Amino acid sequence: MTRAAVLGAGSWGTAFAKVLADAGTEVTIWARRPEVAKALATEHRNPFYLPDVALPSVSATDDHVEALDGAGIVVLAVPSQSLRGNLEHWKGAIGAALARDDASLLSLAKGIETGTLLRMSQVIGEVTGADEGNIAVLSGPNLAKEIAAEQPAATVIACSDGARAVALQQACANGYFRPYTNTDVIGCEIGGACKNVIALACGIAAGMGLGDNSIASLITRGLAEIIRLGVALGAEPVTLAGLAGVGDLVATCTSPLSRNRSFGHVLGAGGSMEVAQNATHGQVAEGVKSCTSVRALAAAHDVEMPLTEAVHQVCHEGMSVAEAVGNLLGRRIKPE
Amino acid sequence: MTRAAVLGAGSWGTAFAKVLADAGTEVTIWARRPEVAKALATEHRNPFYLPDVALPSVSATDDHVEALDGAGIVVLAVPSQSLRGNLEHWKGAIGAALARDDASLLSLAKGIETGTLLRMSQVIGEVTGADEGNIAVLSGPNLAKEIAAEQPAATVIACSDGARAVALQQACANGYFRPYTNTDVIGCEIGGACKNVIALACGIAAGMGLGDNSIASLITRGLAEIIRLGVALGAEPVTLAGLAGVGDLVATCTSPLSRNRSFGHVLGAGGSMEVAQNATHGQVAEGVKSCTSVRALAAAHDVEMPLTEAVHQVCHEGMSVAEAVGNLLGRRIKPE
Repeated sequence: MTRAAVLGAGSWGTAFAKVLADAGTEVTIWARRPEVAKALATEHRNPFYLPDVALPSVSATDDHVEALDGAGIVVLAVPSQSLRGNLEHWKGAIGAALARDDASLLSLAKGIETGTLLRMSQVIGEVTGADEGNIAVLSGPNLAKEIAAEQPAATVIACSDGARAVALQQACANGYFRPYTNTDVIGCEIGGACKNVIALACGIAAGMGLGDNSIASLITRGLAEIIRLGVALGAEPVTLAGLAGVGDLVATCTSPLSRNRSFGHVLGAGGSMEVAQNATHGQVAEGVKSCTSVRALAAAHDVEMPLTEAVHQVCHEGMSVAEAVGNLLGRRIKPE
Repeated sequence: MTRAAVLGAGSWGTAFAKVLADAGTEVTIWARRPEVAKALATEHRNPFYLPDVALPSVSATDDHVEALDGAGIVVLAVPSQSLRGNLEHWKGAIGAALARDDASLLSLAKGIETGTLLRMSQVIGEVTGADEGNIAVLSGPNLAKEIAAEQPAATVIACSDGARAVALQQACANGYFRPYTNTDVIGCEIGGACKNVIALACGIAAGMGLGDNSIASLITRGLAEIIRLGVALGAEPVTLAGLAGVGDLVATCTSPLSRNRSFGHVLGAGGSMEVAQNATHGQVAEGVKSCTSVRALAAAHDVEMPLTEAVHQVCHEGMSVAEAVGNLLGRRIKPE
């Protein structure tokens, strides 16, 4: 049986460790903080994320070498902007797993690296030296809290090596988690990287009191600009019409569990960035950071992304939400 | 200036008459019931639909010949299954408008005609004899109540004659209503005809207590089967990724204003068809009827539509919602 190491014990890493275990895969989860690893190993739950979820058959450690020992699947479950730093630290043990077991590296991280404008799979390839065919990404409408509660969800596992995608699919498919395979890594990653920006825009609109037509229009026009960017980078449009595009976008833009939507809602209701940050437990929403890197990537490929631009103007250039919405509605009418 | 006749004074016909008037187009609305026409003409509001919405610059009549006299735009705003019967009654006056003014026939009706399995634009062409280039359809995330409240919304106007689509776009674009043009009539109509079935499925899932991942997954897999059907009929996939596909689908599947979603919710919570019908003011949801015609159309083109099939089984074959969901989740895992 394949053993999996899940590197990262945040809410999604924790929930995905449960998914793997429930699919019959042997799992060791690595936590940065020793107290988290200890709680996972002894109490079989994560006291900091999803504290009510039992993880009976999951091992845990704060030693990445121990977690990676004998791992055929390496799940990368750390935040996108800290992925490179973590990989630099792990690359010796990951290199051993690649050499020894032809391990699969599966990214759960969603984002575009600031500065380099690289996708997460590119960062993984660059730091670890793994072949493209060893690197896979998982993306879909996967709010961690619902998956931990075993509510049915679908997702996409993408890898240029289709057989590896199927092996990963089998390692995590269970009664409530339904993975589909795809070979379009770029499409899956662009969907995941861009959706938080559009969720911020939807939150802003909802906070201003706009209704379901407006939210649906924003989601659709957001999808259109995500597809434009994806196609410019080599993605298949149909991937972005699927679970890693539309699916993840709809879940993130409509769920009250989405931090980006909630953050935008405060801005739309007239709150400042500081007020929004306080309202969301002191954290800046991911979309506030990623609108800058997505916008830069779009500019580098000469792609028009008016919603991303508007979110950037509101979050980083001091534009009022009323002015931003006025600009969007005032654009010249044209073909779809 | 072009004059428009809006034939049908339901909530969408009434709201769209306001959209046209607010865009500077001269509008006469035809109501079947004399008392509605009278209220519209004298009180400048529709007491039966959207009673709080003022329609100051809209004329009204219960005489279709009067409404169609001099109309360059004929808006067809009656329910899909009664469109043919109405057209048979109107075809003399519509024929005169076509001959005299090269009138545009704009369909707001969404559905597949039971029995013939024709799209609404096909029914219009068949009964009136109008050229394809004179027939346009309008579809998008357009909940009537929100548009009547002047909340921003986008939509698509599709016509095989692109110049006519642009003329119609100009006739209804205003500060809150933003129409995009498209030449893919089939794609726009298929999106509108299929969305209510998927909204029923989403309502069922929500009624069973499933969360946002599940709803987003249903919307996405629903979109996938709508795209399959559309492509088999000659639609462009990108149309279905747009406002008439994703946009309308998301609005209908997520809004509490959607009758189909509400109807499904009752079924998902364990209520019978009768209970659901009573809970939605005695009306059977549109998706209950259209799942049968959409399913027949799919079968005629050898297209697999598992969600539509499941809704049909629940609504017309006595299958329990638990069994239907179990069947969907139990399908073999596979490529996206």
